[in-house]
Amino acid sequence: MTGAALRVGVIGVGRMGADHAQRVAHRIANATLVAVADPDRVRAAELAAQYDDVRVFADPLDLIADPRVDAVLIVSPGFVHEEQVLACIAAGKFVLCEKPLTMDAASSLRVVEAERAGGRALIQVGFMRRFDPEYAAMKAMLDSGDLGRLLLVHNIHRNKDVPAGFTSEMIVRDSLVHEVDVCRWLFGEEITEITVLSPAPTSYAGEGVVDPQVAIFRMESGALATTEVFAKSGLGYEVRCEASAERGNVTVGLGSGVFVRAANAWGGAIPDDFRARFATAYDDEVQAWVDASRRGVVVGPSAYDGYAASVVCEAGLESLASGSPIKVVLS
Amino acid sequence: MTGAALRVGVIGVGRMGADHAQRVAHRIANATLVAVADPDRVRAAELAAQYDDVRVFADPLDLIADPRVDAVLIVSPGFVHEEQVLACIAAGKFVLCEKPLTMDAASSLRVVEAERAGGRALIQVGFMRRFDPEYAAMKAMLDSGDLGRLLLVHNIHRNKDVPAGFTSEMIVRDSLVHEVDVCRWLFGEEITEITVLSPAPTSYAGEGVVDPQVAIFRMESGALATTEVFAKSGLGYEVRCEASAERGNVTVGLGSGVFVRAANAWGGAIPDDFRARFATAYDDEVQAWVDASRRGVVVGPSAYDGYAASVVCEAGLESLASGSPIKVVLS
Amino acid sequence: MTGAALRVGVIGVGRMGADHAQRVAHRIANATLVAVADPDRVRAAELAAQYDDVRVFADPLDLIADPRVDAVLIVSPGFVHEEQVLACIAAGKFVLCEKPLTMDAASSLRVVEAERAGGRALIQVGFMRRFDPEYAAMKAMLDSGDLGRLLLVHNIHRNKDVPAGFTSEMIVRDSLVHEVDVCRWLFGEEITEITVLSPAPTSYAGEGVVDPQVAIFRMESGALATTEVFAKSGLGYEVRCEASAERGNVTVGLGSGVFVRAANAWGGAIPDDFRARFATAYDDEVQAWVDASRRGVVVGPSAYDGYAASVVCEAGLESLASGSPIKVVLS
Amino acid sequence: MTGAALRVGVIGVGRMGADHAQRVAHRIANATLVAVADPDRVRAAELAAQYDDVRVFADPLDLIADPRVDAVLIVSPGFVHEEQVLACIAAGKFVLCEKPLTMDAASSLRVVEAERAGGRALIQVGFMRRFDPEYAAMKAMLDSGDLGRLLLVHNIHRNKDVPAGFTSEMIVRDSLVHEVDVCRWLFGEEITEITVLSPAPTSYAGEGVVDPQVAIFRMESGALATTEVFAKSGLGYEVRCEASAERGNVTVGLGSGVFVRAANAWGGAIPDDFRARFATAYDDEVQAWVDASRRGVVVGPSAYDGYAASVVCEAGLESLASGSPIKVVLS
Repeated sequence: MTGAALRVGVIGVGRMGADHAQRVAHRIANATLVAVADPDRVRAAELAAQYDDVRVFADPLDLIADPRVDAVLIVSPGFVHEEQVLACIAAGKFVLCEKPLTMDAASSLRVVEAERAGGRALIQVGFMRRFDPEYAAMKAMLDSGDLGRLLLVHNIHRNKDVPAGFTSEMIVRDSLVHEVDVCRWLFGEEITEITVLSPAPTSYAGEGVVDPQVAIFRMESGALATTEVFAKSGLGYEVRCEASAERGNVTVGLGSGVFVRAANAWGGAIPDDFRARFATAYDDEVQAWVDASRRGVVVGPSAYDGYAASVVCEAGLESLASGSPIKVVLS
Repeated sequence: MTGAALRVGVIGVGRMGADHAQRVAHRIANATLVAVADPDRVRAAELAAQYDDVRVFADPLDLIADPRVDAVLIVSPGFVHEEQVLACIAAGKFVLCEKPLTMDAASSLRVVEAERAGGRALIQVGFMRRFDPEYAAMKAMLDSGDLGRLLLVHNIHRNKDVPAGFTSEMIVRDSLVHEVDVCRWLFGEEITEITVLSPAPTSYAGEGVVDPQVAIFRMESGALATTEVFAKSGLGYEVRCEASAERGNVTVGLGSGVFVRAANAWGGAIPDDFRARFATAYDDEVQAWVDASRRGVVVGPSAYDGYAASVVCEAGLESLASGSPIKVVLS
Repeated sequence: MTGAALRVGVIGVGRMGADHAQRVAHRIANATLVAVADPDRVRAAELAAQYDDVRVFADPLDLIADPRVDAVLIVSPGFVHEEQVLACIAAGKFVLCEKPLTMDAASSLRVVEAERAGGRALIQVGFMRRFDPEYAAMKAMLDSGDLGRLLLVHNIHRNKDVPAGFTSEMIVRDSLVHEVDVCRWLFGEEITEITVLSPAPTSYAGEGVVDPQVAIFRMESGALATTEVFAKSGLGYEVRCEASAERGNVTVGLGSGVFVRAANAWGGAIPDDFRARFATAYDDEVQAWVDASRRGVVVGPSAYDGYAASVVCEAGLESLASGSPIKVVLS
Repeated sequence: MTGAALRVGVIGVGRMGADHAQRVAHRIANATLVAVADPDRVRAAELAAQYDDVRVFADPLDLIADPRVDAVLIVSPGFVHEEQVLACIAAGKFVLCEKPLTMDAASSLRVVEAERAGGRALIQVGFMRRFDPEYAAMKAMLDSGDLGRLLLVHNIHRNKDVPAGFTSEMIVRDSLVHEVDVCRWLFGEEITEITVLSPAPTSYAGEGVVDPQVAIFRMESGALATTEVFAKSGLGYEVRCEASAERGNVTVGLGSGVFVRAANAWGGAIPDDFRARFATAYDDEVQAWVDASRRGVVVGPSAYDGYAASVVCEAGLESLASGSPIKVVLS
């Protein structure tokens, strides 16, 4: 496929899908936005009208089947991911699927097995912290060996706010899942046990929602990771990670490089949401996917990474309910 | 006693005791060093010779009994604290006792009860983080109410190195005990449950020693605190605390204000040990103790604070052995 | 031109030109690399061979004349800029010309007048700090009015090293010129007077080279800006700016967000050169130029900005020689 | 004098004098407050009443003559310093004199010559930045030679506000004088030329007052230092210094170690005035003076340092008026 631009179709054109469509059209080299699909056909048509020559589908499976589409960026709700990803595998098309890969471990495993049966890696999962320049620099430092063996990780993941109806389970599956992937990636090991604890809730917490949550991961080597997750911190979007290794520790996410001094205060801004904090990471993630797809390979987080995260989150939900550590068993 | 300087005797003149003696003699207003005691009488005499008119005792109880001594600074090993503190209570003398108050909860309770029976508060325990300007500023911010209710705390306590023979239990009793006090103080609540987890050890760890350790405290309100403790981090002395409240979070200990850029690196220095990091805190702690003693009151961490820390650490040792959460029960 | 990708030719394929060619080919949306030109035809051919369907020219004027080239990115040495830019104007092609626009004020003025005579803005000059996210955020804060009127600016511009033969004059024309543009842009005013002072040189300074230099700009409003420039700081590439306004001051460039603690030191990395520090800025600069060119407009620093910088630098050279303030007079 | 506490008299009990009296009484080891003097005898008596056994004088010369006073801390207005310091020299008493030593170079020289004629060093001048832990750490780094030769210094000195009637000349003599001393001390060289430039004033500037000011010092070695001074920045008290040496540069004063994240903002506090920022420095300055006086020596900034600063400031006033560089000539 070298030479021609990758023709990308986007499934799901809500806030995040529209953002990805704009990215493919205006910021990603060697890619062309050629199709969008959404059950809300009007919304899809309005989006398509902003670009030249973009086809509109109400049914995502029609987009996947369209021979003009080389690769598919799935930004639909998680519960329709399995069907759409399986259709892409069947059609032999590259996929960048926003996390979670699917809603539970069993369905994620079906996706992994279908991809294996097809004999070719096609799926990248949207664990975008791996593409953030700061996280990538931290990973490179750890992998260089200069800092010695990784011993402990502490993550902070605070959303400023979430939509009404965001449940305790969604905090695990939609927020904590990022740190599940970060820890598997940084340690290069699987998580073998997870505990999700319920602290006294913030007064911003939704009715009956456990917010914040504190999670503890035990890694294969016995190493531990702790994570604080807020759905509604009220303060802004804060994502930090401190990795402690034998000869050094690395922290990312302390704050931007723009340092302001105003009346009796020094400091900087905390963004409202992930799009401001991780703008470059999303660009780099999609560029990496486009480049790899044009070469016919998958280089980012794989379907297996998506499956492993699903298994850990499923155990996390069990721990959230019981308060006890739950073993994690991967196929 | 107003008007006259407080006449202080120091028991135990190892590295830390010599440091405290020098502090009383040269940096603390309205105090005079008048006596030192140590079983190693030669070491005590050598120290005393550096100052004018300082008496030397081999037996600490003789120092406590000396009518020329108004107040006693105990820097001896923990296992002799109980006897020495009880002697001070019997003699009606003010005491600043380095932590731990005593070696276990039962003996700490005996000290608390003896002080109560005497009808007068005399004991301050050496939880010096309360006197560090950064910790004190954090506490003042939380107490002001501006940041709302405190929800989560994460502590980091990394020693660069410890003497040979430093055991897993000493990590709990001598290092983690500081964060036990920090959490009780910041939350203004007791700890009701403690879990001490054993991660994969650093390769610097002593034979058979669980190093690092990760501890989880459950507070009365249900709030949680997590702590990482290293006896041998190899990196330097790092003590940090991040307190997350409803309208803001505060971090102390990120690094000093001297910012250096050298070949391809920016940054600052990490001290080797607690004396450099907390020099001002020790001065302020001893000055506060001298000022309060001259007014006939106790204002710092009390004998009860020492007792409560002993109870939590004892439960922590049980959790370290079992890996399970242990309830904390205070008298 | 909307719809089709902008077909870009790159003139000059040294280190920086090769970097720009790679950028256009692999990181910039809606642009295609179609031609390269360099007197060293072998070097140009080797570069072209890395991409599909890229024409090679020894003579830059042939590249400019090629009807397949929509827009030209000039990365040749400054002394050939005038001829090449004038040829682009004559051909009605958009240009992104690396700074300096030309070597002196008189030639820059000829370019400005030729562009005016052509009746259409075609030229963007490579003052890339305007596209750095941190500088852009600082400019946006100042322009918002929230911080009040800008009063003082202090710039630091330290190169780690420069090639042999880098003269005192090149420090003004190639390094300080960036801060000339930064101050004109931040204040939204012209510079009316410049003083370039010669401090005691660093021992790394080239034979007879004034390194570092300290420059003082007087702005139209009377405001002042000071700048430190090193050609050979030996430390790394450091570019910072502190803008002091009536209700706040803003600093950019203090260091990256990756915070490391190693043995007895905390900190981060300082890059070796501008490419690491400003990677995102170069991408954003070229993307902005491609997007504007496709819409038929110029949005970045204009030919007049290039001319004004030339006039200031010329006065700066005179001040460097005399040590006295020199008036800046713009046509 | 070893053994006995130093008996200190304080002349001038305005805000700063009362602060110093409280410091001597409550925070400085081996010193006793024994006397205060102030033309406002009622104010002096009220202050004295807070301490035991403190004598009150209306006439400072009576305090200096009192045999019970070993050493004198002068906190009176600058225009009476000469007479008071000369009286201390005549009485053979140690003096800590707040800056400026005297109001002009000629009177400072008379003080230096009187001290020399007396054959014994008695005077320390209140240049307290030398005692700030951050400045002291920077000086130690530079003196260690690890960073190589010092090349450039940039100072920022911003007061939040000043009393009505604070003139352009006072900005030089009372504010900039600190940076005069900092540069002499850091470089270990005299200033040979000073230029004080008048930027466009802040709208907070007093009527007819040049605020801010930008000063340029030329050192003996040819090295340069630039300084920004605000009398009324409106933002808080900010004092920073960046020293650029051949193998590293050091910045102090970027902000405290308490890092707060609140709604959409991270940062810390900027104090209102010098007392909060430099509390430890004042303690350390006075302790160092007390310790040295008890040993019969002077270790802090000397009368000659005070004289040299007066000469530089006098030249600075001339430059402020003319806008031109003025040579600095020391006796």
